Formats: sequence, C-alpha cells, structure tokens
Amino acid sequence: MIRVGLVGFGYWGPNLARIFSAHPGCRLVRICEPREERRKLAELQYPGVEVAAEDHITKASDIDVVLVATPVHTHFELTRQALRHGKHVWVEKPFTSTADQARELVDLAADRRLTLLVDHTFLFTSAVREIKKRVSTGELGDLYYYDSVRINLGLVQQDVNVIWDLAPHDFSIMDHLLGPRARAVSAQGRGHFGTGLEDVAYVTVMYDDDLIAHFHLNWLSPVKLRRTVLGGSEKMLVWDDLEPEEKIKIYDKGAEVTSTEGAYGAKASYRVGDMFSPALGDDEALAAEAEYFVRCLVLGQQPHNDSHAGLRIVELLEATDRSLAAKGALVEL
Amino acid sequence: MIRVGLVGFGYWGPNLARIFSAHPGCRLVRICEPREERRKLAELQYPGVEVAAEDHITKASDIDVVLVATPVHTHFELTRQALRHGKHVWVEKPFTSTADQARELVDLAADRRLTLLVDHTFLFTSAVREIKKRVSTGELGDLYYYDSVRINLGLVQQDVNVIWDLAPHDFSIMDHLLGPRARAVSAQGRGHFGTGLEDVAYVTVMYDDDLIAHFHLNWLSPVKLRRTVLGGSEKMLVWDDLEPEEKIKIYDKGAEVTSTEGAYGAKASYRVGDMFSPALGDDEALAAEAEYFVRCLVLGQQPHNDSHAGLRIVELLEATDRSLAAKGALVEL
Amino acid sequence: MIRVGLVGFGYWGPNLARIFSAHPGCRLVRICEPREERRKLAELQYPGVEVAAEDHITKASDIDVVLVATPVHTHFELTRQALRHGKHVWVEKPFTSTADQARELVDLAADRRLTLLVDHTFLFTSAVREIKKRVSTGELGDLYYYDSVRINLGLVQQDVNVIWDLAPHDFSIMDHLLGPRARAVSAQGRGHFGTGLEDVAYVTVMYDDDLIAHFHLNWLSPVKLRRTVLGGSEKMLVWDDLEPEEKIKIYDKGAEVTSTEGAYGAKASYRVGDMFSPALGDDEALAAEAEYFVRCLVLGQQPHNDSHAGLRIVELLEATDRSLAAKGALVEL
Amino acid sequence: MIRVGLVGFGYWGPNLARIFSAHPGCRLVRICEPREERRKLAELQYPGVEVAAEDHITKASDIDVVLVATPVHTHFELTRQALRHGKHVWVEKPFTSTADQARELVDLAADRRLTLLVDHTFLFTSAVREIKKRVSTGELGDLYYYDSVRINLGLVQQDVNVIWDLAPHDFSIMDHLLGPRARAVSAQGRGHFGTGLEDVAYVTVMYDDDLIAHFHLNWLSPVKLRRTVLGGSEKMLVWDDLEPEEKIKIYDKGAEVTSTEGAYGAKASYRVGDMFSPALGDDEALAAEAEYFVRCLVLGQQPHNDSHAGLRIVELLEATDRSLAAKGALVEL
Repeated sequence: MIRVGLVGFGYWGPNLARIFSAHPGCRLVRICEPREERRKLAELQYPGVEVAAEDHITKASDIDVVLVATPVHTHFELTRQALRHGKHVWVEKPFTSTADQARELVDLAADRRLTLLVDHTFLFTSAVREIKKRVSTGELGDLYYYDSVRINLGLVQQDVNVIWDLAPHDFSIMDHLLGPRARAVSAQGRGHFGTGLEDVAYVTVMYDDDLIAHFHLNWLSPVKLRRTVLGGSEKMLVWDDLEPEEKIKIYDKGAEVTSTEGAYGAKASYRVGDMFSPALGDDEALAAEAEYFVRCLVLGQQPHNDSHAGLRIVELLEATDRSLAAKGALVEL
Repeated sequence: MIRVGLVGFGYWGPNLARIFSAHPGCRLVRICEPREERRKLAELQYPGVEVAAEDHITKASDIDVVLVATPVHTHFELTRQALRHGKHVWVEKPFTSTADQARELVDLAADRRLTLLVDHTFLFTSAVREIKKRVSTGELGDLYYYDSVRINLGLVQQDVNVIWDLAPHDFSIMDHLLGPRARAVSAQGRGHFGTGLEDVAYVTVMYDDDLIAHFHLNWLSPVKLRRTVLGGSEKMLVWDDLEPEEKIKIYDKGAEVTSTEGAYGAKASYRVGDMFSPALGDDEALAAEAEYFVRCLVLGQQPHNDSHAGLRIVELLEATDRSLAAKGALVEL
Repeated sequence: MIRVGLVGFGYWGPNLARIFSAHPGCRLVRICEPREERRKLAELQYPGVEVAAEDHITKASDIDVVLVATPVHTHFELTRQALRHGKHVWVEKPFTSTADQARELVDLAADRRLTLLVDHTFLFTSAVREIKKRVSTGELGDLYYYDSVRINLGLVQQDVNVIWDLAPHDFSIMDHLLGPRARAVSAQGRGHFGTGLEDVAYVTVMYDDDLIAHFHLNWLSPVKLRRTVLGGSEKMLVWDDLEPEEKIKIYDKGAEVTSTEGAYGAKASYRVGDMFSPALGDDEALAAEAEYFVRCLVLGQQPHNDSHAGLRIVELLEATDRSLAAKGALVEL
Repeated sequence: MIRVGLVGFGYWGPNLARIFSAHPGCRLVRICEPREERRKLAELQYPGVEVAAEDHITKASDIDVVLVATPVHTHFELTRQALRHGKHVWVEKPFTSTADQARELVDLAADRRLTLLVDHTFLFTSAVREIKKRVSTGELGDLYYYDSVRINLGLVQQDVNVIWDLAPHDFSIMDHLLGPRARAVSAQGRGHFGTGLEDVAYVTVMYDDDLIAHFHLNWLSPVKLRRTVLGGSEKMLVWDDLEPEEKIKIYDKGAEVTSTEGAYGAKASYRVGDMFSPALGDDEALAAEAEYFVRCLVLGQQPHNDSHAGLRIVELLEATDRSLAAKGALVEL
C-alpha cells in the first residue's frame, strides 16, 4: 500500500484527493493546507485523513509519495524537500518558475532514483492518447506542421501573460506527440491593458527537419476555439476539443509532388480521400494518469511526463519571454 | 462614353470584358490577347469588339482606359506604357513584381494626373464593405488585433510561395480596413516539397499602437477556412467567408480593466452581450468596383485602391521575403 | 418563513432540497424517503433537517408546502392528500398518470384555494423566458408554425414510449409559448425492440388558426439535436439548446404575399434581413422557478404552470396514445 | 449512333442538350421549342442542330430517343405520342400529373418494349449512389427509420403545394434506397397565404415491417437544411447535402436489446463506435444518368428509374393529397 500525502487543498488538490483516496493501491494519509476554511472542507470530505496546517508531509516518515498542488512559486522548494527526504513526487504544472530550478530537480530525482511526475493531465485524455497512438505508428507519415489554436474570452490575468497561462497545455502536448526535438522559438504578442503582459500572442516552434509548430493564444477572442491540426505526408488529423463527439478527425488527404525538375519544375497536386473519426473512451484523464503513476512507482520506472519533460516545457516558456523581448527574433533552445 | 481596351483574355480578362461591355458609361473597343484560341473565344462572345494579337491598346488613340489582365511580370511594362500615352489604368493584382516598379508607377500616375486602380476585388464584396463601414464609425472601439486564417488543401505552386499566392487578398483587406499604418513584418514558414518555397506560413504585422495583425496561410490544410477576426475595445467582429449566410457576426463582447494598481494590480473582467449578424447585399463585387472606377474617372479622383495602395501590398510581400530569409526577424517597413 | 417538506430524495429531490434550503424565505423542515441509503445521504447533507422513512409530511401540521418528487404513479395520491390537508404543492412532471386524475386535482386545488405548481423546469430557463418575452410582444408577428426536434441516441425505456419520455418538455414549452389553444393531435411512430413501445415518433398538434406544431422524438438518432423553430409572419426564431452560446437566433426574414388574384394568382416572395442573437443570463432555472413559486405563495396567486397547465400536458400525451392506436388519425382535444 | 431529339429548351432542356450533344454515342438531331427567344439561344449554342417551333420530334422518323423537358402537364401527351411512334423516352420529373396517366404510359412502354426513363437526377449523385451501395450490402442492418428534412426560405408557389414542389426528390430517393415497399401515407400541413396550398408540411410513409419514413417540407424556414438520416440495427447514416465535404457520415452506433422478459422486461442499451465519412466522386450526376440511359438502350434493358418508379412517385404524391383532405388519416397505397 503506497502512503500518499497531499500538500495543497485549493483548486486542484481536491481532485487529487478524490482520485488517490479511491485508488486501491494507495492510502491518502495526510493533507496539508494553510487556509482554515479549506482544511475544514478537507476534514468533512475525508474523515479518516489527517489534516494539518503546517507541512508535515515532505519530511514525514510515514509518507511514500508527495502530491504538490500548491502555487507554482512554491513547487521548487516543496519538491526539493520531498526528494531530499526520499519521497516520490507528483507535482502540478508548470513544473517550476524557472528552468534553472527545474534542472536542479532533474538532477536530484536522478541522484536519488526517485520517481517524479509533472501533472500534465491533458496528456492522459482519451483524445491525446488516441493521437499519440496514431502518430507513433506512423499513420500520418512525415509530420509537416502542428497548428494549435487556444483562444476564448477569458479573464485577463494580472501576473502572467497569455502564453504562460495557456501554452503549458499545448507545449506539453506538442512535446509528447512530436518528441523532444524542438530547436528554436519565436514569439510575437501585444497587451492592451497597461500591464505589460501580452493578452494576444503567436508562438512558432521550429524543428530540425521541415516540421513547424505554431500556437495562437488569445484571451480576447469572441469565439472559443480549442483546435489542433497535424499535417503529415500521408494523412492529416484535426483535434477539436470542443466537439462533444467526433473530437478527432483523420483525413486521408494530402499533397503529393508528382514530378520535380529543378527549382521551378516541381509540381504538386492534392489527393482527397475518406475521413475517419475514432470513438474515444470516456474514462477520466486524471484517474488514468494516477493509475500510470502508480504503475511507474511499482515498476521503478520514470513516467514519460517526468522532470525532463517538465523542464522542456519551462524552457519553451522562458524562450518565448526572450523572443518577445527581442521583437520576435528566433531563440535557440 | 469611356472607351475601354483590355489587354489579356486569360483567366480574369473575360470577367472584365463582361462587366465593362455591360456598363452603360463604357464601350469595350478592343481586346488584345496573344493566344489564338483565346482570341477566338473573345470574338465569339464579343462580336462587335476588335480582337488583336498584338498590343494595339496601350498606345492607341481611340482608347481612354486600359485594363491590364496579363501575368504579373508584364504589369509594370504595360502599365508604364499606358500611362505614358495618357491612359487611365485598371491593373490586376498584385500590382507589380517589385516595390521599385510600383514606386515608379506611383510617380508616373501622379505626374500625368491619371487614374490608376489596382484590382483588389475582395475590397468590393458586400462583406468587406460592411466591415469597413463599421470599423470607420468606431463601432468596434480601439482595435486590438486582426487575425486572419486562409487555409485549404490547394495546389502547391511551383513559382511562388504560399504567402505571395494567398496573402495579397488579406494584406489588401487589412490595409483597407486598418489604414496604411503597418510598421513592421515578421514571417515564418516551411516548405515540404523540395522547391525552396513555403507551403505553410505565418505572418505577423505590427502597428505603432497596440494593434497586432496575424495571418495563417496554408496549402496543406485538410479543412478549408477563410476567417478573419477583429478584436476591439468595444466590440469584436468575426467574418467567415465560407458561411453561406451570416458571414459577419458582431459580438458585443469585450474585456474591461476594472482597476489598475501598478504592474501587478491590474484586474480585468469580461463582458458578454448580444450578437448581431447584418444582412449583406448580393451584388457582384467586380461590378461594384467597375462602377466605383468609372465614378473616379468622371470625377477625376483617385480610388482608394490606387497605386499607393498597390505599392503598400507589394512592400508587405517583399518584407515577408526578407523576414523569412532572416529566420523571422522583424523587418521594418 | 414558509415551512417546506420534501417527499422523495431520489433523482430530482436533492435538487429541490438544495434550492429550497438555500431560499431565504423558506425553511426545509422534513424529508421523507423510503430507501435507507438515500435517507443517509439526505441526513449527511442536511444535518438540521428531520429525515423520515414514512410520509410524515402531507398531513403534518408544521408544514406549509409539500414538494412531491416521487415516481409519477404516486403523484396523484400524495398531491391529493396534501391538498386535502391544506398544503400548497409543488409536484414534479408529468403531473399525473391520467388526465382524469389531473382534473380531480385541478378541482381540489381550486376548492381549497391552494397554490399548486407542476415543475416544468424548462419554462424557467433563460432561453425559454427570452422566447416567451419576444412571442408575447408580437415581435414574430402571426405565428405560422412551431417545429421541435428532440432526438439523440438514448436508453430505450421499457415502460414508456419515446413520446411520454421526451415530449412533456416540448409540450409544456409549446403550451407556455403558444397559449392553451391546441385543438387536435396526430401521432405516428414505430418501435423496434419488441416492447410494443415506440422509439421513433412524430407528433403534429393543430390549432384553430393556421398554426401547426410538430415534434420529432427519437431515441435512435446518431446525432443529438435539441432544436425548436418558430416561424412567424414578421420574424423567425431558432432555439438550439445545444449551442454553448447563441442559443437563440432571431431572423428578420419572411415570406410576403405581394399580390393575390384568385386561387392561382397568389404570388409570394421572400425577404432576407439581419439576424440577432440576444445574450442570455446564466441563472439556474430551478432557482428562478422556486423564487417564482414563493412569490405566488406570498401573493396568493396561481403560477402559470399550475394544475390547469399540468392537465393540458397530460391531455396532449393521452391524445398521442389514442392517435397512435388509430394509425395516426387526428384526435380532437 | 443514337439519334436524339429534345422537346423543350426552357430551364432544364439546355442541360440535356449539353450532356447529350457531348455524349460520344449520341447525336443531338433536333430541338423543338415554341418560344422564339429560347430557339435563338439554342441555335447560337448548337449551330449544327435543327431548331424548330413545332413538335417535329415525337413522330419524326430520324429520331430514336425523345427527351421530354416541357411543363409537367404536357408530359403525358408527348410521351404517349413518342412511345406510339416507337421512340425511347427520357422524361423529366414528375412523370405525369396523375397516376392514371402514369399507368397508361407504363403499359404502353411495356407493350412496345421501349425504354422509358424518368429523370430523377438526384439518384445519380455520388452521394445517393454511395448510400445505395451501403444500404444494398446490408451494412446498416435492418432499417428502422428514414428521416428527411428539406426546408429553406423559398418562393411560395402559386400552383402546387410544398409537397408537390419538394417531395418528388425525396420520394424518389426513398423509393430507390428502401425499395418499392411503401404501404401507406399520412400528411399534415398548413398554408398561410390564402392560396389553399400548404407551405409547411409533414409526411409519414409506413412500411409493412417496422420501417417508418418521415419528411419535413417547408418553404418558410429561416435556415436551409437538406438532411436525411437512415437508422439501422447495425449502423446509422447521416447525409447532409449542404456540407461542402463530408456529405455522408456513417456512425457505428446503435441501440441493442440485451434481454427481453415480457412487455415490461425489455431492456436496451446503446453502443457508440467510430464514425466514417467516405470520399465522394465529383462527377456530374446528369452525365452519369445519361451514360446509364445509353447503356440501358444498347442492352435493351429498363432503367431502375423507369415508368414503374415514376408511377410510384406520382402515387405517393396523390396519396398525400388524399391524406391532407382527410385531416392526416392514413391512406393505403
């Protein structure tokens, strides 16, 4: 039985408590949360679980796994402490505030041979799992582009720009689907509320080969869109996450070069074929991720969304900051 | 009666012949076209019009207006000749192959006080006219962003990249709606067919104020989209040109800063209101443009889509070439 | 303070408990529920409320209002008992199993001058309230037709056909919007699972004037639709309840007779105008309905969804049974 | 070489002239058309074809096939005359004004062993051909229902009701897909312009087994819909003819009875699976139909859309008239 402690019972913590308390291989032992009101709620919902104001978890001897569900600026310190005390860690995204912090935790987890998972829940949705499966089998052929649109009319944040708010989802999905091969980042954006923070932004990520990824992030859109398109040499895939059904459509379409005769002799035509929309399971992404995490713990394996993956996402985010400061100039990763 | 001569009876020329031969204030006098097969077609359809193989139009004394509907690399020479012989000119888009050529024609038309129109037909669609009207009255408030998507599965061209193929439409519409205030351009793209030409591209256009424009241009999209969004401080407008009806939707939505207390104190909320879709007329854009051109001729006025506007579009296109060559670096206009 | 008792803590009862326990003018005094498991849940959620297995509510002297949230076959008996003991009643839909039962309750409530509300929650959604407002002001002109589609892939019921399952919603909305003027009913349908119960059905409701209403009800549709169209002489309204936003669209469209010269001389053309989609509030329908019920109680008024309205819906349902048995023959109401 | 004569050069005749004059196995010999203006157009477009004012076709000795593209009230007389003079006939839809006329032509064509085709062009679209193929192979399983919606804001006709105007398309498609097994018809409708003709109508067609077909026909709809759903025991098919692509979607969905224990013991659940949209060819329906007609002529076969099929459609239309007159009562075919 894996003994689990949860730090933070705010917005996301209750979901972790629900999932891990119901997992047959885990026992939720303790919850730490500084706010009294939130502690009372935790006590009501989890009568058999100890609830404390101070952190009695990261160093506690009766805890095997620490779940870190606190504000991002505390992730580094709590995770470091837990690792130093020999605990496996599940930490919310984004992993850390800076890439330097993330690198230190990568090394620490490796040194101690501990399992560390950065919770990018989206990777465990049935949609992303289905896309990953199809990309991995090569069904799409060589990948040409990855185009992501995540826009809506949302609350304009006061401490982070629209990229740090929305792009962690998309960067982690891109990283998972395309592999850790991104080479350079360019970002453009504008803010309109005097905060110095962008509310509309466009990010391009370049790869070594001819693959290009692009992200449209916008808090000021009158229409809500969550759409990702992957274009490949064999097939093209559209993922529309707002569709109640048929979230994924795979088009047997493409362009084909039929002859090449020097720079001005290339001709290409296009091919139109069937479209297919696979049925997706309706299991909860967080439950699937917890199940996967437990399996990694038992087998002593690192999850694919480990500290390295968490680091790569933070590096991408930091690169967008540098590119924005340099008027969109391409920043090598 | 305005005497009109048409040079070129290929893809677009027949439309010009149809419109100007039917205009009560014009007489289509002569058509020049080098290909015999096309000349025969012109003779069949316009029995009373002289049809010639050589250019007997740009210098002819019985012609007041020359319509140039030939390949783009011939625009400069034909237009210059026509202007030098005192003729008003209607020339197809893009205006010229280079900005230098366009500048020479701007000066020449001004010197001779002749009317020159660059045919950006899209500007005369009922949709763009409706949007222009609403932007001009300030209904949208301060403009925040202009986001354009023009993607589909199309023939991959062998002599121009996807920007030169598709963006002239969007650049001319942007220029018309937002005014000639663009300051800098950034472009990113990739090609996948060994031609050295981009088939997927993203272009950002920056303005002096907080306005940002962005263009997604793609020949490899499994779905066809023609959508432009204008976000303003008061309202937001979505133009979906593929909608059979309700092409334009105006949202009484927006984000509002409700308090500002230093860099980290700004708070913004959003406002949701009604949506309105104006009925659009179904008159033909080209007929409306011809009518407008004739009115300019009669009144001795320059059209808004004159040589200056044509030059600005070519400058934007050239700037994307320079930015692509500089890995997306911002290029000042 | 209005003292409220709730009979039934199954599927819908918890919602009533939540709403009435939070209402400032009401006090939830007692809950009766025969199943022990459900009683335990009620006790946990409402510590200060008495929870009993037997019905200590319909006759209790400390109760002013009885909420009846039990299976439909028990509605008549519980409601009659409550009314006889001088209590106001809120009863779930459908009102009763038969029109005869409903008529008895209509009389009883009138005799005792008690307030009786049949809970057709849909009438209190912001969408239906908006439509009602616009129909009432005559904005649509003379009403021509009411077309309702409520189809999806759903569980095939074993004790009621698709009309009794789905149409109570639509009949009550129609009755509310068009007024109690329906004159005759025709129904056609087929079942495919050997139960003798229709899983696909079409119902037509005729009015005295030229108004016609029609309902498509289907448990076997691969796509889910919830769409109602009201066609009027001035405007037309489309309500798509599955749209996340823009649920209601009002079209300034119509057909117009421009001349009439005998049976074969009538000519009609159509008119196309703007479209408008009003913003809808996001308040909870059930809370709005409870608020309305309390206001009726305080003022001693009957709600519009009273026993008469409940009776009319049951009469419509019974009429569909008779028409189905008569192969679709028109049944007068 | 098949010698073809065309009677009628109005709305549809020019299409027939175009198709048959281009067919390698046919020669368009003569066109008859009473209106001088239309004759001039025919002469201009078909210089080598004889154009006459009087009917020199149905009796002419140099004609093998007569194409009848005249108003419906003339179909019977022209077709009868052509058949009596030994000519094969292609006649526009609807076949005749009355079922009695159609029956006489059925007998006459059989007696003379002549090929007669009623032009229901829709049957030869790539969409209907694809659906027919899939229904025929049993891919959908047992057919449960056929639901057709054909509505838009259209010109209100002055001489026919909305059923006679729009339903011939849908009845012929239904007849083609489901086979000639319809048993009874019910129709309801209302008119709103004082002509005595319905502008909104609902038609139900019953089959011997549990199959039910339904048609919504409406000239007063603010939105345009052309959608047909076929529900089967194995799969369900949606055909949306207004979709530019993905006109046909096949859902691997269905309801399944998992146990049956008397009238109240049946339980059914539903199954959700993949969706598939087959690519459709873009060949012209009329050309495909002409090709099929020529093949039938050469092989001496009757087309599937022969006089019997034409008769069945007219019988269905007449049955709707009788049902409307009987307030929607079911009319046996």
